[in-house]
Amino acid sequence: MCGIVGYIGQLDAKEILLKGLEKLEYRGYDSAGIAVANEQGIHVFKEKGRIADLREVVDANVEAKAGIGHTRWATHGEPSYLNAHPHQSALGRFTLVHNGVIENYVQLKQEYLQDVELKSDTDTEVVVQVIEQFVNGGLETEEAFRKTLTLLKGSYAIALFDNDNRETIFVAKNKSPLLVGLGDTFNVVASDAMAMLQVTNEYVELMDKEMVIVTDDQVVIKNLDGDVITRASYIAELDASDIEKGTYPHYMLKETDEQPVVMRKIIQTYQDENGKLSVPGDIAAAVAEADRIYIIGCGTSYHAGLVGKQYIEMWANVPVEVHVASEFSYNMPLLSKKPLFIFLSQSGETADSRAVLVQVKALGHKALTITNVPGSTLSREADYTLLLHAGPEIAVASTKAYTAQIAVLAVLASVAADKNGINIGFDLVKELGIAANAMEALCDQKDEMEMIAREYLTVSRNAFFIGRGLDYFVCVEGALKLKEISYIQAEGFAGGELKHGTIALIEQGTPVFALATQEHVNLSIRGNVKEVAARGANTCIISLKGLDDADDRFVLPEVNPALAPLVSVVPLQLIAYYAALHRGCDVDKPRNLAKSVTVE
Amino acid sequence: MCGIVGYIGQLDAKEILLKGLEKLEYRGYDSAGIAVANEQGIHVFKEKGRIADLREVVDANVEAKAGIGHTRWATHGEPSYLNAHPHQSALGRFTLVHNGVIENYVQLKQEYLQDVELKSDTDTEVVVQVIEQFVNGGLETEEAFRKTLTLLKGSYAIALFDNDNRETIFVAKNKSPLLVGLGDTFNVVASDAMAMLQVTNEYVELMDKEMVIVTDDQVVIKNLDGDVITRASYIAELDASDIEKGTYPHYMLKETDEQPVVMRKIIQTYQDENGKLSVPGDIAAAVAEADRIYIIGCGTSYHAGLVGKQYIEMWANVPVEVHVASEFSYNMPLLSKKPLFIFLSQSGETADSRAVLVQVKALGHKALTITNVPGSTLSREADYTLLLHAGPEIAVASTKAYTAQIAVLAVLASVAADKNGINIGFDLVKELGIAANAMEALCDQKDEMEMIAREYLTVSRNAFFIGRGLDYFVCVEGALKLKEISYIQAEGFAGGELKHGTIALIEQGTPVFALATQEHVNLSIRGNVKEVAARGANTCIISLKGLDDADDRFVLPEVNPALAPLVSVVPLQLIAYYAALHRGCDVDKPRNLAKSVTVE
Repeated sequence: MCGIVGYIGQLDAKEILLKGLEKLEYRGYDSAGIAVANEQGIHVFKEKGRIADLREVVDANVEAKAGIGHTRWATHGEPSYLNAHPHQSALGRFTLVHNGVIENYVQLKQEYLQDVELKSDTDTEVVVQVIEQFVNGGLETEEAFRKTLTLLKGSYAIALFDNDNRETIFVAKNKSPLLVGLGDTFNVVASDAMAMLQVTNEYVELMDKEMVIVTDDQVVIKNLDGDVITRASYIAELDASDIEKGTYPHYMLKETDEQPVVMRKIIQTYQDENGKLSVPGDIAAAVAEADRIYIIGCGTSYHAGLVGKQYIEMWANVPVEVHVASEFSYNMPLLSKKPLFIFLSQSGETADSRAVLVQVKALGHKALTITNVPGSTLSREADYTLLLHAGPEIAVASTKAYTAQIAVLAVLASVAADKNGINIGFDLVKELGIAANAMEALCDQKDEMEMIAREYLTVSRNAFFIGRGLDYFVCVEGALKLKEISYIQAEGFAGGELKHGTIALIEQGTPVFALATQEHVNLSIRGNVKEVAARGANTCIISLKGLDDADDRFVLPEVNPALAPLVSVVPLQLIAYYAALHRGCDVDKPRNLAKSVTVE
Repeated sequence: MCGIVGYIGQLDAKEILLKGLEKLEYRGYDSAGIAVANEQGIHVFKEKGRIADLREVVDANVEAKAGIGHTRWATHGEPSYLNAHPHQSALGRFTLVHNGVIENYVQLKQEYLQDVELKSDTDTEVVVQVIEQFVNGGLETEEAFRKTLTLLKGSYAIALFDNDNRETIFVAKNKSPLLVGLGDTFNVVASDAMAMLQVTNEYVELMDKEMVIVTDDQVVIKNLDGDVITRASYIAELDASDIEKGTYPHYMLKETDEQPVVMRKIIQTYQDENGKLSVPGDIAAAVAEADRIYIIGCGTSYHAGLVGKQYIEMWANVPVEVHVASEFSYNMPLLSKKPLFIFLSQSGETADSRAVLVQVKALGHKALTITNVPGSTLSREADYTLLLHAGPEIAVASTKAYTAQIAVLAVLASVAADKNGINIGFDLVKELGIAANAMEALCDQKDEMEMIAREYLTVSRNAFFIGRGLDYFVCVEGALKLKEISYIQAEGFAGGELKHGTIALIEQGTPVFALATQEHVNLSIRGNVKEVAARGANTCIISLKGLDDADDRFVLPEVNPALAPLVSVVPLQLIAYYAALHRGCDVDKPRNLAKSVTVE
């Protein structure tokens, strides 16, 4: 997943591009580069590593009013100077940046570039070389660009410079996110509106298989048959301060702390004038009338879906399956007669989930997207959207989007229950409010969490999180948090499954975190803790007030047990944060990762 | 999960008990002990560690014609001399061995043993002390034993000596497996017929909440109301040589090698006289007519169920859900109207699965058990049984039972498809035969597997197995194999999920095994391999002939892609075996584990 920016206007492009790339660094930070165009030609600056490393190599003396830029998460070819974008064609005429995966780049290389010596192992360089081959064969740039696009299989968001026409940026998109931003005397290009909020909040959405000719005073959108398309612009709801760290050392800590506020925003947003929880009527009906619901997500969103399934089944009495998007799309199970698909994606751009959305829409099924980004691809292409109202989530390790997804799923399940004439037995508005307060209390106990992280995780190379039912689902999320940012090999397990193999890994001192917030499995999970303790594990029981025992390491404030996940995850988020901090890891941008995964 | 033996007859009991315990060591090997009774009294010998360690402390000069014995897998209290069984009551009159978990032992301690000083932290000692309290209170032994049994909550298989009546062994069972074996001048007790094949193959099954008074010439079964129960005996189908290692250094290697023979036995057993695959008519109908099938299993059986789901959905067009037993039993999802439950359990004694069987039978649903042990609890208590015909599986790490479960599920799915008028498009008998030959060819390439294990796993502390669809399901099994016996922290992942967090764990040299046997995901899994290789992973691609690339590390013989799991798992079994061997681990009896998990 890479980030792309472009600017063409009256100001010096370099600083606008670099600031834009910094906002997109969450999308990938293996290497970065920019190309700027002025009378002398096209100047490329690129470097392995972060934008800060790129800034070191950009020549401040090169003034240019147009430029394109890229920050990379390597899919093909290791992170290196050579593989960094922009890539240039053999004769240097064309310069290109690309986000996505061109699946047939090997065939294109064999078919069109027999006698072209490639400088890198990237799929991207193949694209820019093929464009030049078609121009060498007599086509105009736009025509050569269009012809190349029609040959590409896979996902792309592309910005292209032609050295012979430096007042234009050629842009195109398929599957990967890309927007055009509008200004009075300039126009911009960006993978995410956040990158160009610095200069404009007016954007135009691009659809798959469209190309755009961008100059400083004109934006022409065309389909791949060359027909011009007109489309209204929209104002991005974001405000710049939303995406600043403020006094926090890391976005992750800021976003962990924002969870109580997000809870209250969700309660307030989804209450009607009588204080009753409500969602748009057609969404409530779609959930209530489905004969089976399929929740689709990846990583943390998949984990939130596991919790959401319990709510919809327990309250709305509709059976639910939860699937990892990349597995569902290639191995679709037998579907029920009248399914509803719920897509969970913080960014609304997750490629694996989008692949499933395209499939199920083609089968004529209904889809609801629950996302944090209005106007995102998954939101636009679904029948319904519910927003998380969590505000931008910048840190790669998701925190507030996870608890927001669970809260919105709880609201949805309770409204659907109501529609099915089922009383869930408690006042969800009140209980969500109590959970928000409990989260706040936990966020104030950071010292305690830091102490637990120090006590259990200072030297350990692995850690286990065990729980049953809802606790198990939070354990796999807690393990993912720790794994992602501290590189400790953490795994979440159903307590009952340890005996069937994994307990062999337990040695003297192995840290085992156990969640005990569900009464009906309290005895059994404590039995599992005894089994690992009997084999030398360093156990840390985190229990819910009312189910706590004397030697539990931490007791969570009392909340409705169904909402315990909203509360029990907060210590695990903070423990992971401090474990990473103590190890000197880059908490907001862990190695190998990117925020939104927009490639399959 | 512990193993229990008892003998009362004319011969010296010690050697019979010790040999019996050796056969049960697969059930637990933290500590072991025996108690033998003669004119001088009851002599207890116990020791931490293996039966070999116990042999060191048994006094050869003590002659006794009756005895009870136990080999332990610690659930309460660490493995130690103190916690080893047998346990004796305060005044030494009663001596007891127990397999199971007494959930309310803390309450019993508080209620009945206020002024008794306990010597260990085990739930077992509480039972023997309570019995003595009731006898001190004036009850006869049998009455005190019965009263104690009625108070116990949880699972137990118990053998008890009363020093004042040394010609009797008092036995009782609930949920944990226990059999009585019959002989002319003796009788025996055993958790598994295998233990006492040395002296008899005639056994009587015991049901839950029954107690038995065993003397050398009489076996009296009673329920907990004291009513005598008569029950016919049966002949155990096992033959002693089945359970010998023969020339193999380890059972695991022997059982891995037996897989081709087991395949052919399954093909032959499930063919009718016209060579057509068939299962008992009522089973085929139950599968074909179910509106949804729920496959329940733990550990390796759960992994086999993930593969079986694909067959039943693809061929028989019946939707399937696969669940971990311990999660299902405490968090049952919404069930369909006309479900069929399929229980996978090599031993037929898995407590977690049995808990679910009891629940669903109480709801009036139908259940099919697929197991390797005829007459086992799960087989007896289900409506239908299909046998694996794999022969005893002694090694803790399951190999041939896994592939046998997949093969039997394939047979079942194809017969159900036939019943639903669906042609699966190929001759399963022929394709299973080809798979058996391919397995055989792989078993002959042990040197190659040892080389791969040496190349990738000699120093590594962790390893990843990545695949998509059927390959992903084999990867989680491959990871479990490696984890269980080599203590390398191995995890199996869906290729598409790595980018969503786990890829952060990939460092220079991290071993990543990738399976590529499914054409429709071949491009994507190879893309995932590139992503981890770009971050320094030491990748090992194992592909299916016909989908192979030049730089794949190992190419599997060509088989029908649907049956690829039967073939692709063999290299992973052997790689795990050699990795464990190179590290000097106890392959057949890995630490912390036991073969069949008969406690929840």
